[in-house]
Amino acid sequence: MTYHLTLDPDLTEDAVAYNDALASAVARLSADLANGDLHALSIAGETADLIQLQDHATRILSDASEVFVLGMGGSSLAGRALVALRNDAPGDVAIRFLNNIDPRTWNSTFSARDLARTQFLVISKSGGTAETIAQCLLTLEMVTVAGRRPRDCITVVIQPGPSPLRTIAEQHGLPALEHPAGIGGRFAALSLVGLLPAMLAGLDAGAIRRGARFVLDDVAKLGVESAPARGARVIASHERNQVGVQALLSYGDVLRPLTRWWVQLWGESLGKDGQGSTPLATVGVTDQHSQLQLWRDGTHRHMVTVLATTLPVDTGVMTTGDPDLAYLNGRTMGELFHAEREATCETLVDAGVPLRRFDIERVDEETMGALFAHFMIETILVADLMGVDPFGQPAVEDGKQRARDNLKAM
Amino acid sequence: MTYHLTLDPDLTEDAVAYNDALASAVARLSADLANGDLHALSIAGETADLIQLQDHATRILSDASEVFVLGMGGSSLAGRALVALRNDAPGDVAIRFLNNIDPRTWNSTFSARDLARTQFLVISKSGGTAETIAQCLLTLEMVTVAGRRPRDCITVVIQPGPSPLRTIAEQHGLPALEHPAGIGGRFAALSLVGLLPAMLAGLDAGAIRRGARFVLDDVAKLGVESAPARGARVIASHERNQVGVQALLSYGDVLRPLTRWWVQLWGESLGKDGQGSTPLATVGVTDQHSQLQLWRDGTHRHMVTVLATTLPVDTGVMTTGDPDLAYLNGRTMGELFHAEREATCETLVDAGVPLRRFDIERVDEETMGALFAHFMIETILVADLMGVDPFGQPAVEDGKQRARDNLKAM
Repeated sequence: MTYHLTLDPDLTEDAVAYNDALASAVARLSADLANGDLHALSIAGETADLIQLQDHATRILSDASEVFVLGMGGSSLAGRALVALRNDAPGDVAIRFLNNIDPRTWNSTFSARDLARTQFLVISKSGGTAETIAQCLLTLEMVTVAGRRPRDCITVVIQPGPSPLRTIAEQHGLPALEHPAGIGGRFAALSLVGLLPAMLAGLDAGAIRRGARFVLDDVAKLGVESAPARGARVIASHERNQVGVQALLSYGDVLRPLTRWWVQLWGESLGKDGQGSTPLATVGVTDQHSQLQLWRDGTHRHMVTVLATTLPVDTGVMTTGDPDLAYLNGRTMGELFHAEREATCETLVDAGVPLRRFDIERVDEETMGALFAHFMIETILVADLMGVDPFGQPAVEDGKQRARDNLKAM
Repeated sequence: MTYHLTLDPDLTEDAVAYNDALASAVARLSADLANGDLHALSIAGETADLIQLQDHATRILSDASEVFVLGMGGSSLAGRALVALRNDAPGDVAIRFLNNIDPRTWNSTFSARDLARTQFLVISKSGGTAETIAQCLLTLEMVTVAGRRPRDCITVVIQPGPSPLRTIAEQHGLPALEHPAGIGGRFAALSLVGLLPAMLAGLDAGAIRRGARFVLDDVAKLGVESAPARGARVIASHERNQVGVQALLSYGDVLRPLTRWWVQLWGESLGKDGQGSTPLATVGVTDQHSQLQLWRDGTHRHMVTVLATTLPVDTGVMTTGDPDLAYLNGRTMGELFHAEREATCETLVDAGVPLRRFDIERVDEETMGALFAHFMIETILVADLMGVDPFGQPAVEDGKQRARDNLKAM
């Protein structure tokens, strides 16, 4: 495997105090996995569905120049994180994600667009997400006006059973792919919600699941000493003390969308019952010029998780005769990037900011699968230690109902 | 003017307790403005420099198809916030910002790029920012290989006096625009750092400063009852209680880059002496599906500032015969967007989450100038109430030195 978690500062006495609770949490997680009650993770062991999924990917890609993925939150973030892996080449089918309903953005995207070779993938697991339905209704109108049959350019992803999106799909004869009912939105990275966009980008979906299996095997073998369990223990112990903000700091850009996926996972899973820390998606070196000052010298409420990737490519060397720039002469941009990453870690550790890092040798499909699994398991274990249910999102549901009521009253 | 601040819940007793300290803070701010010690804001009263700046914009744009703005943090974020205002039209000169030094991103941006009509604007006020110098050195090499003279396609922005970037500019004869020495990075929105990219995007720089002047006049006239002072008072009183995270929630996409500018302003200005709250850049409705759960039901440490824009455009209406979707039938995407925004505000207020909102009639240059000035003044006043110096960023400087040391040791 290609990622390695180090915890620095290493296990504190506080963290060790969590060992019994953590052992119980790991046992519950393992039982849920064995019972089939945690399909979000056990799906990593499945491969048969990928064959059918590849057929759909092939169908969607045939004669497409671009695919728009329409969906909110968990229906968008994992796919986006995966598609970021691709090094775009000329001629690639562009994969674009629309996860807002700002009409200015919608119009500027579509008002002058030739839709002749455009495909749409509409994802709402419940089949009732208002924003996604709205996107879908406008898309139906738009492609019809463009002279296309909806069934030729719109595919929906939806869980079994009746729902508004299913009704739309049936009315228009849209291809409808089934989403497993037991996998919730933000936990859907390893289902077709994450993997179909990945396949559309030409990525190896099987390898994503294989990466997740490495982590599941690690948990099965090492229990409380597995990487996700050690992570959960350190986080829980720091949060018992002063930490209330969890920053995920990606070096570099390729993992930025993953940090946004994680923000939803963390915030919606743990923000309950008056508990839960605030997740923060950040990127190095950019955010050294924005947030490092606060983390080092501000209120000590931050814990930082660094995603340290090994750079797969680098620039040429810089040449300068200026003695004030001697530190840059003969160096590459990647060497500077690397030096800054290490400097940031040193700065934070010296200031007593809790820091852990993932050293990631290769950012590829396996690694992404492993990171998805790691963060999902870690979140579930932290939830267990906190005594909250990581699944469900009552506040979001409440907001949805209020929005519908507002719309009726307008 | 086109923005209006409402505070909800309105002034608490706690907030009123800050009145004396706030009056002193406003008096200090006014004195600094009068003395010329706060050029970041008093520059709003200047217009002469814009004429020369427009000449440079015209020169850069002549025969350009795209402009890359190279710079970190405050040298990038304000310009980016402004350029987002433009509704891109075919034939527009693209304005792109590179504010990281990830070599994968650099290579994928430039490896197959035709640079014949590309311009570069290199911004480092100190003239010594390592990342920006690195970008500049690689750009010099790159354009030379492409057969262009650096002086024909690279312009630098730099403060007076000797610096590595000035040395480079002199060696290669690059046009060098002077940045006022007294204006620090994150406070440079109203200087050419913000305004030159805005001009390159065809925006009215004079209107940006005019918008800022409205806010300055408001402060001069209303003192502690001006919008920025009322904002500072409410924030300070909530932060004395449980609030440790300030979320800026933009409805909609056009103000997302502004929220990122504000994150740097807030974090680097106030994150000192063991104080300072954590700034969070968020966007509606997208982040309702990511963070609302935590804000409503999680630890009560968040205060939310909503930027509620009046939508300048809307989509056509949606049509559906499904009774389950009756709430959407005959509605536009903008109406749904609006209903969700109001629902989110209601949800948060009902849950006792401190919330304030800016109602913004028109997102234009004046409004952006006003928002820049509002947030800069509010930040300076909060710093005064906290007893920290809003200028300077010792932790960032420390990190820079460590990075150079690391590079030498590599």
